[in-house]
Amino acid sequence: MALTRFGPSALRRGGYTAAAVLRLATETDADWTRRALAGIDEVLLDHAHAEKKAASGALTLIFRYPDRSGLLAPLSALAREELEHFERVLEQLARRGVDYGRQRPSPYAGQLQSAVRSFEPARLVDTLLVSALIEARSCERFGLLADAVDDPELAALYRGLLASEARHHALYVELAERVQSRPEVRERLAELAEREAQVVAEAPPWPRLHT
Amino acid sequence: MALTRFGPSALRRGGYTAAAVLRLATETDADWTRRALAGIDEVLLDHAHAEKKAASGALTLIFRYPDRSGLLAPLSALAREELEHFERVLEQLARRGVDYGRQRPSPYAGQLQSAVRSFEPARLVDTLLVSALIEARSCERFGLLADAVDDPELAALYRGLLASEARHHALYVELAERVQSRPEVRERLAELAEREAQVVAEAPPWPRLHT
Repeated sequence: MALTRFGPSALRRGGYTAAAVLRLATETDADWTRRALAGIDEVLLDHAHAEKKAASGALTLIFRYPDRSGLLAPLSALAREELEHFERVLEQLARRGVDYGRQRPSPYAGQLQSAVRSFEPARLVDTLLVSALIEARSCERFGLLADAVDDPELAALYRGLLASEARHHALYVELAERVQSRPEVRERLAELAEREAQVVAEAPPWPRLHT
Repeated sequence: MALTRFGPSALRRGGYTAAAVLRLATETDADWTRRALAGIDEVLLDHAHAEKKAASGALTLIFRYPDRSGLLAPLSALAREELEHFERVLEQLARRGVDYGRQRPSPYAGQLQSAVRSFEPARLVDTLLVSALIEARSCERFGLLADAVDDPELAALYRGLLASEARHHALYVELAERVQSRPEVRERLAELAEREAQVVAEAPPWPRLHT
């Protein structure tokens, strides 16, 4: 299914287009937004865990590929930003009186990771592109939440994170293009975007950022 | 052996005293400084790995203790600082033409970790205090290097990192005191400092930050 329409007004206001920035194969449906708003505190908790895992994912790549010197500083700076977002989400959780703690994770990221090929450099390229798609889906959904959520501080948070997520998405794609040629990367990204769309379509209806 | 004299002039200039800030049981001897200067590029590479591992260690605690809400934001901010230092050390490596890559790690951190007790909350307290001691030893040695190294950019780097490491040391001790009482923490810190002194004394004579 093609991305025929692009919803989030906050993204449109930023001058971004879905095709140029997000490269997702499907658009989030209105059901997700309704579910997310009904369970916004659970979504916020999931979001905190997602920021923490995003930082950890970038750090894992730094540990795994010490010889890929061109990746190290960008991934480190990206991990710092994810941690800053983690802290901002923690603040919002505290303000709303939600305890941070363990939460049953959605199968989204795990199912996407299972598409990562096991041989190098495909493993590295796929890992970067899966991260790119997770950032893209976050970006799209922060736009939906920014427009729909009642709490003005949460709306401001989501609006503020949009641009970072779009930038992180673009950075991950760019890093993949330092490892393989642009046509190879773009072809693989389209394949993984189809996979991502399938994972989203089959996700359990829990209030989570990515299901 | 008591810390009878405190060498690094940069630390003295900052108004710090060893007893108040570093809580180390021994002082680094002049042999270490001579070895470090002779192998300064290897020390710098080890330093990059150490910053990366420090960030990872803080993140590991964030993952392991989601219910210790008071620890999360300070550890996240600390991890961000370690990553920023990692990037600064990478810049110095690049400037000096040293490839970042794998390096045989010194046994220092592993031997210190082996002193961590296996039951909670002792495990958490010990992990925090081991980190505190690693920061303290880094701080002391950055002071020595800042005064001794020829390269003015490296001297500036070490001088700049001194205050951060002292602050991180103090933060780790403070976080431990949120888990157990101050007298318990101080007693355990003194025990672990003795262990740290022993590990340093028995370390192989490689050019590394902590051996």
